[in-house]
Amino acid sequence: NVFDYSLGNPSVPTPAAFNAELIRLVQEEGTAGLHGYSPSLGIDYVREAIADSLNRRFGMSYTKDHIFPTSGCAAALTHAFHLVTVPGDTVLAFAPYFPEYHPYVDLTGARLKVVPPDVKNFQVDFEKFEEALTPDVMAILVNTPNNPSGTVLTPETLTAMADILKRKEKEFGHDIYLISDEPYREIVFEGVDAPYVAKYYDKTITCYSFSKSVSLPGERIGYVAIAPECPEAETMIQMCGQISRGVGHNCPSSLIQRAVVSVLDMTSDLSVYEKNMNILYKELTGLGFSVVKPRGTFYMFPKALEEDAKVFARKALKYDLLLVPGDTFECPGYFRIAYCIDTEKVERSLDAFRRFVKAEYGM
Amino acid sequence: NVFDYSLGNPSVPTPAAFNAELIRLVQEEGTAGLHGYSPSLGIDYVREAIADSLNRRFGMSYTKDHIFPTSGCAAALTHAFHLVTVPGDTVLAFAPYFPEYHPYVDLTGARLKVVPPDVKNFQVDFEKFEEALTPDVMAILVNTPNNPSGTVLTPETLTAMADILKRKEKEFGHDIYLISDEPYREIVFEGVDAPYVAKYYDKTITCYSFSKSVSLPGERIGYVAIAPECPEAETMIQMCGQISRGVGHNCPSSLIQRAVVSVLDMTSDLSVYEKNMNILYKELTGLGFSVVKPRGTFYMFPKALEEDAKVFARKALKYDLLLVPGDTFECPGYFRIAYCIDTEKVERSLDAFRRFVKAEYGM
Repeated sequence: NVFDYSLGNPSVPTPAAFNAELIRLVQEEGTAGLHGYSPSLGIDYVREAIADSLNRRFGMSYTKDHIFPTSGCAAALTHAFHLVTVPGDTVLAFAPYFPEYHPYVDLTGARLKVVPPDVKNFQVDFEKFEEALTPDVMAILVNTPNNPSGTVLTPETLTAMADILKRKEKEFGHDIYLISDEPYREIVFEGVDAPYVAKYYDKTITCYSFSKSVSLPGERIGYVAIAPECPEAETMIQMCGQISRGVGHNCPSSLIQRAVVSVLDMTSDLSVYEKNMNILYKELTGLGFSVVKPRGTFYMFPKALEEDAKVFARKALKYDLLLVPGDTFECPGYFRIAYCIDTEKVERSLDAFRRFVKAEYGM
Repeated sequence: NVFDYSLGNPSVPTPAAFNAELIRLVQEEGTAGLHGYSPSLGIDYVREAIADSLNRRFGMSYTKDHIFPTSGCAAALTHAFHLVTVPGDTVLAFAPYFPEYHPYVDLTGARLKVVPPDVKNFQVDFEKFEEALTPDVMAILVNTPNNPSGTVLTPETLTAMADILKRKEKEFGHDIYLISDEPYREIVFEGVDAPYVAKYYDKTITCYSFSKSVSLPGERIGYVAIAPECPEAETMIQMCGQISRGVGHNCPSSLIQRAVVSVLDMTSDLSVYEKNMNILYKELTGLGFSVVKPRGTFYMFPKALEEDAKVFARKALKYDLLLVPGDTFECPGYFRIAYCIDTEKVERSLDAFRRFVKAEYGM
């Protein structure tokens, strides 16, 4: 009877439309090339449908030539890093951040440098950002809505960031790309307007995954979208095809590429995540935790009740609470709650939280 | 009305069992985690089923812990190269060979070195092999049945190769791995006994794809199998999971992993390939071409009728024949015919071959 708050696995079903489309494709096209090679840049009508959906929803002007389907965000990000760095270059990320960025960047021979967190609200500490933005930085990497903090970068943050990047580009005499990791883009809570990052900076490489919004993590499907205003955007997409050859990627499954077209403008019923967030936020703040209220995702990132969040998380285990210390996200002193579990379980866990903080911290 | 002999795309349908299993999975398990994350080493029952199938068919003793599902052979090979080399090491391949080996090896920082072809029968020129087998070689790479030659390495060749490798391991004081690229393993012709490579050498890393045998090239599904006798085989499979993190691979589609279990002991109806081979072999040898008779695959690799196969292929275009010059496979003076097309088309092409060689070469 463990309350496992440690895993970022979506807990809600895939939209029925996806399964219906899978069956339709197999029944109607199963012997007619359905399982044949995808073109090396992805299936044209799929790329076009993705572009259209982004244009409709975010007022962009992508064409299929700005879209490269990938095996989830992992592949999208590795392609992006290969695209804009050579060995020795630096990619700048902001703590707290998804730890898998490290292996992705490391393999390209570039280096991941991390801007310390802005723990007030998990936006950006601009002083530290400018300090870290040295001439070897070829790309900065943002993740909004954010794993693990659940915060959403505001229009003000993105505007200020873009201004700095443009200024530094001139100063350094080279391009600086903005890589935007957006698997949680559609998981935003009531009243939150999550800005579309590429609207704020031309040289934006958007990395998307269908893993979270439509609960398809195992099908490994996502894409790279390069902003139409980015110089050489189409050429960069062509280069993605070349990068694929080296990494052995060669497009996501043809069947899955086709089927995902059915859910481009859709999400799973994501309401449970907000419901869980509200229950936990109310309880934890009531217990005295300091928490920046999540504006999206299915994560929350409260301050631990002692300096070492690893010790804190170890103590929580005694109360059957599985929490992830912020050290994992290069943000010590905090801990992540992944509340993509049943609400009933969240409710049952509240008593464990109460017993935990009372017994261990006298609160 | 072009006779396109240039592409290695399977032309026969996927077994009906695969589509039936896809539909069954979606209907029966579509809302129950079917699309959820695969474990990082692949889905256990899939790995076990692959091991069982190999054991049944080739008398091996794999367990699931020797199997790592990958997105086709491309991913299997890149994982294998990362597994056994560090930057600066050398991988040795044999001409003629699949040109995509280059980007796969290059990205790891290792170097691909090529043993010149044994044009008598496209086995191995052992003198040149030993000459090329220098102490920097950490792995050799074979592809049997072979693209582009259609030949199958004989038990004698594999035995002699294994003896040399074992001798050189002692001499060099380090392991030498045998990476066996086997997407055409099941496409062998009447009376041909295609040896299972891993039976000849313990340190064999088998790279397989379901692209050709069951016509699933677009679904990107295959595996790495490490011979049970290979020291540290299970650890190497675990390392594949780590390599995946860096390359952004993260397992093939969960749905496709599961569905492929239905066709492990099956092939598509491959008879058309042998039929086409026989028609072309008879015609081309009759016309005076020098051809090593293919023993498998859907390729044939005759000697061109002039020294420069690129010029030869360019002339063939005038007769609507699309052929690939052997230079692509680092074997100049030869050309590849990919006869994975309809037999009716093969038959209609014979007249084009006749007109071509008569008009251009007076034969």
